[in-house]
Amino acid sequence: MRNIFLVVSYIGTNYNGFQIQPNRVTVQGKLQEAIHMLTGETVKVEGSGRTDAGVHARGQTVTFRTESRIPIERWALALNARLPADIVVREAKEAPLDFHARRSAKRKTYRYTIENTRIPDVFYRHIRYHHPRPLNLKAMEEALPHFLGEHDFTSFCSKSSAKRSHVRTIYDIRLEREGPSDSADGRHGVLHLYVTGNGFLYHMVRIIAGTLIEIGEGKRLPSDIPRILAARDRLAAGPTAEAHGLMLWEVEYDSD
Amino acid sequence: MRNIFLVVSYIGTNYNGFQIQPNRVTVQGKLQEAIHMLTGETVKVEGSGRTDAGVHARGQTVTFRTESRIPIERWALALNARLPADIVVREAKEAPLDFHARRSAKRKTYRYTIENTRIPDVFYRHIRYHHPRPLNLKAMEEALPHFLGEHDFTSFCSKSSAKRSHVRTIYDIRLEREGPSDSADGRHGVLHLYVTGNGFLYHMVRIIAGTLIEIGEGKRLPSDIPRILAARDRLAAGPTAEAHGLMLWEVEYDSD
Repeated sequence: MRNIFLVVSYIGTNYNGFQIQPNRVTVQGKLQEAIHMLTGETVKVEGSGRTDAGVHARGQTVTFRTESRIPIERWALALNARLPADIVVREAKEAPLDFHARRSAKRKTYRYTIENTRIPDVFYRHIRYHHPRPLNLKAMEEALPHFLGEHDFTSFCSKSSAKRSHVRTIYDIRLEREGPSDSADGRHGVLHLYVTGNGFLYHMVRIIAGTLIEIGEGKRLPSDIPRILAARDRLAAGPTAEAHGLMLWEVEYDSD
Repeated sequence: MRNIFLVVSYIGTNYNGFQIQPNRVTVQGKLQEAIHMLTGETVKVEGSGRTDAGVHARGQTVTFRTESRIPIERWALALNARLPADIVVREAKEAPLDFHARRSAKRKTYRYTIENTRIPDVFYRHIRYHHPRPLNLKAMEEALPHFLGEHDFTSFCSKSSAKRSHVRTIYDIRLEREGPSDSADGRHGVLHLYVTGNGFLYHMVRIIAGTLIEIGEGKRLPSDIPRILAARDRLAAGPTAEAHGLMLWEVEYDSD
């Protein structure tokens, strides 16, 4: 028995999220189908976590067990030949049998991309949320440190969450600007929000992004964040930002 | 009567090319529909030239005449609100009545993008041609100067061309590498071929790209280009590279 670890990219646009569901097209379902085509085996692919419908992944990670003897360096190309073009296996590695894509994960990073321009770049429309009105970038940046550390993120979690604890730790949160820094008109071009933590609740990054956008619009203040966290009430935070701006960026583990 | 000039970007994937055809979804058709929705007028949109099915444009240019009094600064947003999300008007300008998107054009630049990596980046699959095998970049670059200047490009033109003359002038042709320059494995990452000329024949840039790829694969030599040009025979050149790697990059005019 072998335990195979994959790093997978996908465009989430045409999928009902990562997790397999009956009669729905899902990334997990497509991965299991490709493995079945390749090996004849019916495997259970375990992801580092779910991604919602329409959410993308640059570095989703999965593990699965197989009896197949296919050499490890052949898996990525062999699976890619059997996957739809919007799912790509970037890397395959042999893992110890006790390694698990979700349980062994130490840190996860999500990226939320806002295109703050008058006119959007059509070639990125599938992976950027277009926000044409000016944003106060300084105010958005001032809000970020309030998210750092361990907090109860109930206010930044969909009400439909079934998790027992809403306490999570944010290790790093930052806004990076892509391209030219001219903002004479109050618009800032492409902004990437990177959030790294030990785990994320349902809609958590999208609600953080939606709340930061309201701060950028002047509807809230950076100093409102501690109060929103303390409220432990979803209604205290801003709206859930659209799915297509979100990407599971990276999942980190203790060692190779 | 006004003459309006637009710069338009589009993802060509879901269109039967730029030029309007009965019962086909085309970019020109969508632009005319959007103008009709906005002004009530039935206009003829004149493009700087056609793009084939599946070919993209960053800077296609068009002109059309209208009686509408909508201020020029409102056209881009008003049309974008009426266009599908994969067509975006980037800019609108008032033009003299004798200005014509095609007849007034002085130089055009096309870009052909080759992703020379083992595994493609899924987020760019719609605009890059993925070529996984190593390429000899030096040989490809050596071939480029042979295209410069005025030549009869019959060998680099689809046989279905109905143009009287196949003589065109190439002002500039270059290969630019995007991102890291590590090529330890003989692969060169993302390569953009930019070709600027006074006009282009049917499939011309795609046949140049297909021929350069064969040079990169070692199937032809850089010094073959003069002989291919002299043959004035489509069969002398390489294959037509796939449409989705091609983008009409820019159309230049004499003045603003």
